[in-house]
Amino acid sequence: MKIYGDSNSGNCLKVKWVCDALALPYDWIDVDTLKHETRTAQFLKLNSAGQVPAVAFDDGRVLAQSNAIIRYLARDSDLIPKDAFAAAKMDEWLFWEQYSHEPYLAVCRFQMKYLGKPASDLDPDKVKRGYAALARMEHELAATRFLVGDSLTLADVSLLAYTRLAREGGFHLDGYASLRRWIGEAERSLGLKPVR
Amino acid sequence: MKIYGDSNSGNCLKVKWVCDALALPYDWIDVDTLKHETRTAQFLKLNSAGQVPAVAFDDGRVLAQSNAIIRYLARDSDLIPKDAFAAAKMDEWLFWEQYSHEPYLAVCRFQMKYLGKPASDLDPDKVKRGYAALARMEHELAATRFLVGDSLTLADVSLLAYTRLAREGGFHLDGYASLRRWIGEAERSLGLKPVR
Repeated sequence: MKIYGDSNSGNCLKVKWVCDALALPYDWIDVDTLKHETRTAQFLKLNSAGQVPAVAFDDGRVLAQSNAIIRYLARDSDLIPKDAFAAAKMDEWLFWEQYSHEPYLAVCRFQMKYLGKPASDLDPDKVKRGYAALARMEHELAATRFLVGDSLTLADVSLLAYTRLAREGGFHLDGYASLRRWIGEAERSLGLKPVR
Repeated sequence: MKIYGDSNSGNCLKVKWVCDALALPYDWIDVDTLKHETRTAQFLKLNSAGQVPAVAFDDGRVLAQSNAIIRYLARDSDLIPKDAFAAAKMDEWLFWEQYSHEPYLAVCRFQMKYLGKPASDLDPDKVKRGYAALARMEHELAATRFLVGDSLTLADVSLLAYTRLAREGGFHLDGYASLRRWIGEAERSLGLKPVR
């Protein structure tokens, strides 16, 4: 299996983490999104959406979208709850991540870290919505150890990707004790070094 | 089961369509997002994300996020492919819909239809990305009858919601023959009247 990914992208790292956690072998093919390598004719043949991550299996089949990829790779593993409703709650977090979290946390980080914008030049609406996402996670994580109950699921893998990098997008986590506790636990569960 | 939804929202209608297709009984509780009824203390207790649709089951459990809800309700039905990889391709479309389609198609429609913006005042970047999403669907649907092979899946249900309403957001579908063919087939499969 080949993972086409940019190692600066939290979305791409989700796939690596799941492979590492489940001991699935892979080759990592670096694709530099800053150099628009996802927009070449060759890459678009692989994924017509022009996005990484994308995974190519040995039989030539290709799968894209970080959360769809990790959901497929982790099928039948403990990273997806066996109970259908608990798995649906995990899916709820996965879709929420792409709609209400990543577009703010990841985009602010991208603008600061890769485009060199100072925090003061970020779109105030994106910052506000980013904090709203963090506040919702804090609220939920005050009540449960992980996002769906007591053990790590793909919901944690997915939301960890950009939450642990929130500071790089100008977000302060000082008032978010449950969130910081969860970041540490999720990082340890995945064998990741803390980012700060 | 209660569906909390706004009948002007394609995201909410997805849930209704799946219930109707599978003959699942429900009560529809109208929630007016324009009147901020998703932001009341009472609603936030139901879904701390403050978004519709949300579904409350008779035992009190609540599920949110349109695509997570329809995935749960349609489990073990023909709307989800039995083959694990085909189901993953369906998931790829579901996540793509929320990240690369809905934020442009649904948002432009909302601004024109509910906020009264003329098409000329829409954000040109949103319009461009909306057309890019439509072009990608056109490209894929030139090769297959439905988004994942020959039969209707949740990928079609989900993407139909705002694609069929594209004109209300100022998008012209004249050059998109495969897309228009697919809209008609998907509408007929779900027993919906054509919108235009």
